[in-house]
Amino acid sequence: MIESRAAVALKAGAPLSIETIKVDGPKAGEVLVKIVATGVCHTDAFTLSGEDPEGIFPSVLGHEGGGIVMEVGEGVTSVAPGDHVIPLYTPECGECKFCKSGKTNLCQAIRATQGQGLMPDGTTRFSLDGKPLYHYMGTSTFSEYTVLPEIALAKINKEAPLEKVCLLGCGVTTGMGAVMNTAKVEPGSSIAVFGLGGIGLSVIIGAVLAKAERIIAIDVNESKFDMARKLGATDCINPKKFDKSIQEVIVDLTDGGVDYSFECIGNVNVMRSALECCHKGWGESIIIGVAGAGQEISTRPFQLVTGRVWRGTAFGGVKGRSQLPDYVERYMRGEFPLDDFITHTMPLEKINEAFDLMHEGKSIRSVVMFDK
Amino acid sequence: MIESRAAVALKAGAPLSIETIKVDGPKAGEVLVKIVATGVCHTDAFTLSGEDPEGIFPSVLGHEGGGIVMEVGEGVTSVAPGDHVIPLYTPECGECKFCKSGKTNLCQAIRATQGQGLMPDGTTRFSLDGKPLYHYMGTSTFSEYTVLPEIALAKINKEAPLEKVCLLGCGVTTGMGAVMNTAKVEPGSSIAVFGLGGIGLSVIIGAVLAKAERIIAIDVNESKFDMARKLGATDCINPKKFDKSIQEVIVDLTDGGVDYSFECIGNVNVMRSALECCHKGWGESIIIGVAGAGQEISTRPFQLVTGRVWRGTAFGGVKGRSQLPDYVERYMRGEFPLDDFITHTMPLEKINEAFDLMHEGKSIRSVVMFDK
Repeated sequence: MIESRAAVALKAGAPLSIETIKVDGPKAGEVLVKIVATGVCHTDAFTLSGEDPEGIFPSVLGHEGGGIVMEVGEGVTSVAPGDHVIPLYTPECGECKFCKSGKTNLCQAIRATQGQGLMPDGTTRFSLDGKPLYHYMGTSTFSEYTVLPEIALAKINKEAPLEKVCLLGCGVTTGMGAVMNTAKVEPGSSIAVFGLGGIGLSVIIGAVLAKAERIIAIDVNESKFDMARKLGATDCINPKKFDKSIQEVIVDLTDGGVDYSFECIGNVNVMRSALECCHKGWGESIIIGVAGAGQEISTRPFQLVTGRVWRGTAFGGVKGRSQLPDYVERYMRGEFPLDDFITHTMPLEKINEAFDLMHEGKSIRSVVMFDK
Repeated sequence: MIESRAAVALKAGAPLSIETIKVDGPKAGEVLVKIVATGVCHTDAFTLSGEDPEGIFPSVLGHEGGGIVMEVGEGVTSVAPGDHVIPLYTPECGECKFCKSGKTNLCQAIRATQGQGLMPDGTTRFSLDGKPLYHYMGTSTFSEYTVLPEIALAKINKEAPLEKVCLLGCGVTTGMGAVMNTAKVEPGSSIAVFGLGGIGLSVIIGAVLAKAERIIAIDVNESKFDMARKLGATDCINPKKFDKSIQEVIVDLTDGGVDYSFECIGNVNVMRSALECCHKGWGESIIIGVAGAGQEISTRPFQLVTGRVWRGTAFGGVKGRSQLPDYVERYMRGEFPLDDFITHTMPLEKINEAFDLMHEGKSIRSVVMFDK
């Protein structure tokens, strides 16, 4: 057992509390990781707000991290102390029906316990003042030391800067993967991306890598447009500037609609717009955003019967252990930027400022650095 | 100009009227066809009922025919008198953006005029007592002689029995194509088909040809089950026999859901069930049925974010001129049955009985034979 600095979510709706918690060593199949840097993502804020019906407290949030293996439990063979890793909230066991299907990245091996805030053996490795703290998304990167199942670690290039590539643990990979893995955008395609937060901007990066010809970026906050254009958007549109629906605007602009669209907000009305701005006959819309509990999407079935396709994606359809290391390599080769996403960095003690910046729309990503 | 026996839809909501109409000869790019046999489809009944907001009267309905070319207009090169053809309500010009995309069968070359009940030059070839009659779906197979654009004719094997393969002009191809073209069902897959009319039964045929391992047929009318089993259904389910939703029944039955599902009714609630009975991670649901005007489909976006795909199909995604002739060849080789579908045949004069049989659920398909 070791001590660790951590930002603890003691209860819903309150700021995180900086505490010194206790972390038990790794059991069989588990790995102790020292987190070097972690992004702060909307999903952390969603759970902290109390709106997430599956939120569990007290817990250690955080799921967008980069770290170094400190100690491995019995039977662990794929990583060793000193390895650099990105924690995976979507693990990859390689053996379940889902992993073996070849059709999805949604490994279900440890889903039940992960959803309960526990390690696969049904217990927690964290405690504060003698009372258990729950894990979060199987990652809990807001603790300097965290324990993860071996199947939830992507081993990456040691030369990659962890304070940058930690963003590949969630948002950036989700957006890029949605384009390259889920939609499989072809060169010359037209795409529309709704919402220019970290995910939406990552969709633009993915579309540029996929050689999309036209990249239409949509947001009601025009301050996002400079960055969107810098990353490669060819058109930036504020839906509030038009008297007609945004789907009509895009259909008119593109002679019938886009080949692919991406919803990166979590708004069910925007999800409908994203589907309906797709081209008849082949347009595909990919839902990335997470809607509020109980909300529903709707459209006329005629939209689908005339050839549009509605799908979704989680973690960009990327299999963490087998595919994420290559995202890191592509970053290292300079194929896409990450620095642009990191608008703020801060030490753990100031993590609540990262939430404030996000809520105020002032940051793309804040990265917490444990040694800063 | 020639005279022709025809069943005319004089107005919505009334039986068809057997009349002798006048048919003008083919203009440039058009073809005069003698219809030998025509199926009677739900879509004809939908338009005749008056519920189809795009229905136009007086008109000559019918879109599931088989016939012989009698005369070709100027510039027609792909068919000649004596050729056997299946009229296509979805033409294939080979030159429009849609045909060239390689992604859809929804040729739009003559869509505007076809929707107005007119030939591509904006006029009609039919008249009754000196007044114009409108075309329907560009085919109007309820007239013994009809005129079609060249791009709306599939030239088929002359040895194929027209009174059988006329069914490939709509329903059977729609169901089979949804499986083989749109869903691309792989060997060993599980599928669920909702609604066991002509389309649903054709889905079963397609699934058998695609070597699906499990074929679950769903209908509230259990009298359909014998035929479903005969064609290859492995499970027949009446949703009314369960206290839980049909999607729950199927998920339980299949350890998580089916790989593919097909909605063949046009009921938006069933469309939802069809999506939600699909397997997490990869299940795809294909909407074939046509819903009433203004009706909408809904689901929680979580269904898509966790890997299900919602799509639709029209004419089974089949390109009529380039792909339909091969369906005829496969039938001729005995790869699938059509006789089972034809529960009734009748002369033109008794065509209204075909509508009665359909409404009473007593027929799969009635085929009207002009020479009977």
